[in-house]
Amino acid sequence: MTSATIDQKAVSTIRLLAVDAVAAANSGHPGAPLGLAPAAHVLWKQMKFNPRDTKWVNRDRFVLSNGHACALLYSLLVLFKFDLHVSDLKQFRQLGSKTPGHPEVLDVPGVEVTTGPLGQGIANAVGLAIAQKQFAATYNKPDITISDNYTYAFLGDGCLMEGVSGEASSLAGHLKLNNLIAFWDDNKISIDGSTEVSFDEDVIARYRAYGWNIVEVEDADDNLEAIANAIVEAKKSKDKPTLIKLVTIIGYGSLAQGTHGVHGSPLKADDIKQLKTKWGFNPEESFAIPQEVSDYYSSHVQENIKVYNDWHATFKAYKEKYPKEGAEIQRRLDGKLPEGWKDALPRFTPADKAVATRKLSEGVISALSPIIPEFIGGSADLTPSNLTKVAGSIDFQPPSSGLGDYAGRYIRYGVREHGMGAIMNGIAAFGANYKNYGGTFLNFVSYAAGAVRLSALSHHPVTWVATHDSIGLGEDGPTHQPIETLAHFRAIPNLSVWRPADGNETSAAYLSAVEATSHPTIIALTRQNLPQLEGSSIEAASKGGYTLIKNDKPDVIIVASGSEVAISVDASKKLAEEGIKANVVSLPDFFTFDKQSFDYKLSVLPDGVPIMSVEVMSTFGWSKYSHEQFGLNRFGASGKAPELYKYFEFTPEGVAGRAAKTVQFYKGKTVYSPLNTAF
Amino acid sequence: MTSATIDQKAVSTIRLLAVDAVAAANSGHPGAPLGLAPAAHVLWKQMKFNPRDTKWVNRDRFVLSNGHACALLYSLLVLFKFDLHVSDLKQFRQLGSKTPGHPEVLDVPGVEVTTGPLGQGIANAVGLAIAQKQFAATYNKPDITISDNYTYAFLGDGCLMEGVSGEASSLAGHLKLNNLIAFWDDNKISIDGSTEVSFDEDVIARYRAYGWNIVEVEDADDNLEAIANAIVEAKKSKDKPTLIKLVTIIGYGSLAQGTHGVHGSPLKADDIKQLKTKWGFNPEESFAIPQEVSDYYSSHVQENIKVYNDWHATFKAYKEKYPKEGAEIQRRLDGKLPEGWKDALPRFTPADKAVATRKLSEGVISALSPIIPEFIGGSADLTPSNLTKVAGSIDFQPPSSGLGDYAGRYIRYGVREHGMGAIMNGIAAFGANYKNYGGTFLNFVSYAAGAVRLSALSHHPVTWVATHDSIGLGEDGPTHQPIETLAHFRAIPNLSVWRPADGNETSAAYLSAVEATSHPTIIALTRQNLPQLEGSSIEAASKGGYTLIKNDKPDVIIVASGSEVAISVDASKKLAEEGIKANVVSLPDFFTFDKQSFDYKLSVLPDGVPIMSVEVMSTFGWSKYSHEQFGLNRFGASGKAPELYKYFEFTPEGVAGRAAKTVQFYKGKTVYSPLNTAF
Ligand SMILES: [Ca+2]
Ligand SMILES: [Ca+2]
Repeated sequence: MTSATIDQKAVSTIRLLAVDAVAAANSGHPGAPLGLAPAAHVLWKQMKFNPRDTKWVNRDRFVLSNGHACALLYSLLVLFKFDLHVSDLKQFRQLGSKTPGHPEVLDVPGVEVTTGPLGQGIANAVGLAIAQKQFAATYNKPDITISDNYTYAFLGDGCLMEGVSGEASSLAGHLKLNNLIAFWDDNKISIDGSTEVSFDEDVIARYRAYGWNIVEVEDADDNLEAIANAIVEAKKSKDKPTLIKLVTIIGYGSLAQGTHGVHGSPLKADDIKQLKTKWGFNPEESFAIPQEVSDYYSSHVQENIKVYNDWHATFKAYKEKYPKEGAEIQRRLDGKLPEGWKDALPRFTPADKAVATRKLSEGVISALSPIIPEFIGGSADLTPSNLTKVAGSIDFQPPSSGLGDYAGRYIRYGVREHGMGAIMNGIAAFGANYKNYGGTFLNFVSYAAGAVRLSALSHHPVTWVATHDSIGLGEDGPTHQPIETLAHFRAIPNLSVWRPADGNETSAAYLSAVEATSHPTIIALTRQNLPQLEGSSIEAASKGGYTLIKNDKPDVIIVASGSEVAISVDASKKLAEEGIKANVVSLPDFFTFDKQSFDYKLSVLPDGVPIMSVEVMSTFGWSKYSHEQFGLNRFGASGKAPELYKYFEFTPEGVAGRAAKTVQFYKGKTVYSPLNTAF
Repeated sequence: MTSATIDQKAVSTIRLLAVDAVAAANSGHPGAPLGLAPAAHVLWKQMKFNPRDTKWVNRDRFVLSNGHACALLYSLLVLFKFDLHVSDLKQFRQLGSKTPGHPEVLDVPGVEVTTGPLGQGIANAVGLAIAQKQFAATYNKPDITISDNYTYAFLGDGCLMEGVSGEASSLAGHLKLNNLIAFWDDNKISIDGSTEVSFDEDVIARYRAYGWNIVEVEDADDNLEAIANAIVEAKKSKDKPTLIKLVTIIGYGSLAQGTHGVHGSPLKADDIKQLKTKWGFNPEESFAIPQEVSDYYSSHVQENIKVYNDWHATFKAYKEKYPKEGAEIQRRLDGKLPEGWKDALPRFTPADKAVATRKLSEGVISALSPIIPEFIGGSADLTPSNLTKVAGSIDFQPPSSGLGDYAGRYIRYGVREHGMGAIMNGIAAFGANYKNYGGTFLNFVSYAAGAVRLSALSHHPVTWVATHDSIGLGEDGPTHQPIETLAHFRAIPNLSVWRPADGNETSAAYLSAVEATSHPTIIALTRQNLPQLEGSSIEAASKGGYTLIKNDKPDVIIVASGSEVAISVDASKKLAEEGIKANVVSLPDFFTFDKQSFDYKLSVLPDGVPIMSVEVMSTFGWSKYSHEQFGLNRFGASGKAPELYKYFEFTPEGVAGRAAKTVQFYKGKTVYSPLNTAF
């Protein structure tokens, strides 16, 4: 077989595996795999990876931003000998299979990031490329290159329409990420039909405006050579990411090619047969992999394993020549944090002055950054408000800009919260133990909701530094004051949402966030000053909730978070004057508290005592831990913070009055802890 | 005084009012007002509006997308004689004032839309322009023009960085909205300093790529004539929205002009004094409005009132010549729906077949659309999945496209959920009783969280048709299956979140949504079929929650929503076989239920009976109405819907088993309704 023939046969194999998988599931998307198989084949043939070590740090990354085309990706993973097999393709989209309906990083060996929600993948790819640049600039030496991989992404029209992709792409252009190569599947079809109905902008001109390099392939359905040349061309770019436009026909080869009909529904049986016949396959056979195609891919894997082994030899030499950096890389690849890093966490006593938790957060970031090189972050254009930058630290910027360099650890995200969230996921997905954070106002983490939920689903240990966390931000008013925000994020599985009440709790929040390996964290922080609490400690707070003021046989328990804890402490003192014994519980993180033993939790929120929650935002969800809720189930207002707290009665008097009513209401009633449940 | 001199004096007055307001508050943003005052002055001088009738349908709309510059807008409103006064400026950003920290449509006479969260305003402006085109195309006659207003927007660099603005702008270009003129404050500064640190894309080229007309003013700080000419030029555009680039100096005139220092902090006292002296004002006087400036603006108001009166004369003639359309316009301006529209709502009996609520939603939309001309909507590229389009209806498209016309009522939003949400707000803000809806999967409403919260805050009666509302969507898997979504939106104040269980409840949801005048609605709808329930009705469901199966002295109450109601009904039958009497409550909308009388609510969820909630997603918040919660506090999975329901035990057996455990657990305990609270 000639090389051209075998390549064509390989492409047909990919196409038919995808078509057969969708047909077997009677569900899925055959259209994009048919159009994109040639590009996938050509790209993967020149990619650097080892199917037996899918976490190799210098592998090329591939992101399928149009995740619905996953039958394509799964077919590639099977053919390139990952731990995914034809038997898995036969279980496509079935419960418990390794081939779910969209690529899931935790379920499928070889998938780099979970995709499906459109626009996320390309933004993840920007994060992967940022991480690579940062890693390479930190560790490569003039004589030894440790990191030089590329990040590739496929994306469809839908990804390009989503704002999150625009945000990330604009930043990628600014950052001159020439290690990023994206392929746009320009098939002129989306679910509503022709892209002409809503999307006739000039994508190429837009990406040029972002500062991208452009390469176009007009016949990407079958011109493998043109695709290969496009990749070569893209790799010549010294200072720009590249967008390769692939003009394709959706559902190429199908009787319904070029129509929306092939996008999201299986091909008809007859159609599949004519495809197989046309491409020289047995029309009666499904999931066929011709031996020569299998061998062809095997030979590529063998070459790649040589590349992989060479890299390990290089890394060995590196470790010998540069023992300090080598050890640091090894530590990071082992997923370990530097010895003793926790000792750097600031600790406070009640004698210390009142400080805003955003300022305390700055203290933690400044303390940890010099010790943990993989602790990097930035802000969505709110640096002076979020206090996320270590004084004197270097920006992550293209060196030619004169504004920083690629070893810099502070990322200027611009006003792009959603892009930032998705990029953060990409940085985490790079590996090498990156613990990356991003700052914005708590209210605007909501702009990134799509990315936050994927952090949680994908187990990315990223951290949001979410300042200005309540009406306590004051004059900016209700457009900026979170009400529903904590409820929203607390309801997301596998997401830690801290709202520390003082310095020790702020340190505990970062301790939790930096130690995390499989969940993201949001840290909600105040603009206003808070006192250092008697009885708080990093250790106590690290349980997610603990008793701050403990009475023998209390009449009521006040459970609060963040800025309302100190108010509740004062309320407890007022109540004592009235002869009411009020315990105060600080509950900075539901997620962490929920993980404690039942006995511990019940010791904090026991049977027999009415419990009232206090938090200056939506009470939604607080009934999980309390019988009564004092909160703000309306939008806030514009005014000075102390006046707002007074107006809404979040004062020692306001809390004490409600606690007294709670005591009165439950007098004579049998009270059970809300933690006691039937199942 | 020459015209040039008085204009300059007027501009200085605007600038100084803004500076004084920020100084009085000791909080706010003087930088953008100083830079943008000339453009604001020139623009407003030629705008059409009546400060005494701020809801006039043919007024020009002005949107301050960079809402933090609101001191500018408030100064304009004072000078142009709206019901806002210098006394209000003196209360800038104070609690209870008419001059909050960002423009709030409900608080400030003359503010069109609430802005502040960046990127929203320009997208609202696209919605305002769409509504104008649609209204004009529907009612203008060859001989009488009823609607021809423009929509203007100011936006800053921050707005341009946000993805939502890109989404909306791309669509605006596609739709050829030449009635939209946006002004970009190109001052090269954002909060992190120079825009060079993160935003050096070619904005002009990007907007050209979107299909916009571009006009540039290089000296917009003081060249009033150039600004005026730019507007004239923009208005010549026949088929494109226009972006006018205004090169300005942030904080123009200040000693710190051109730096980030003037963005978000008051100017120093000395700086203010030198400004006043430089511009011929008394440095010791604050909030000065020279008499000649006041008179100058008054004369503009007088001219505008003539324009306003002329329009009313035209409308009178229109009503005489076109009585049918005239009456319809009048009805819409009066905020009334057509007589008898509710009769069109489909009703069902248990004999009717099982249907997916998304399909039932299609039935409602198809029934209401012919009757209610202001009921318009679209989908974010999921039309065949959301079922949001009436068969045979016309697309809202530029006529030159051949794809529809501007009187069309179906909007092809593309894959742009956040843009869609913000555009929906703009359409609602146009007035004329528009009741507009947008479709996407429930999970992707989260992409638009920033816009949804502003709908609720601003009281926009928009509707999200949110299909595929649970793991019941099946194979698409966890990236598409909502878990936290309903909790998130239920925690937003003033937002109605329906999850109907059958056809009658779906009709009730639309009844509520279309009647709404001051709150938005999300309707969560299934992909899978649901039976028509015995005991459901539009009237019962319209209470937000009601008892579907009622026993004398029940042992347990099962409260459920949407697809879990029928399962709970079956569970109740199983429990009856075991001798357990289980009431079933359907609770399709928390927001509506909460508004019912306490007695009614307590009749549904009474004291003395343990209550268990059933909903196949996060239980977060359900403890508000129940003692025990059965839900899904983890991400879903990819598989066939019935298999997922079985796997997660959302079956009659799974529900009945937990209900039986609930009965057992509460046996002998005194149980109070969760509705009973201490305060
Ligand atoms: Ca496409
Ligand atoms: Ca700016």
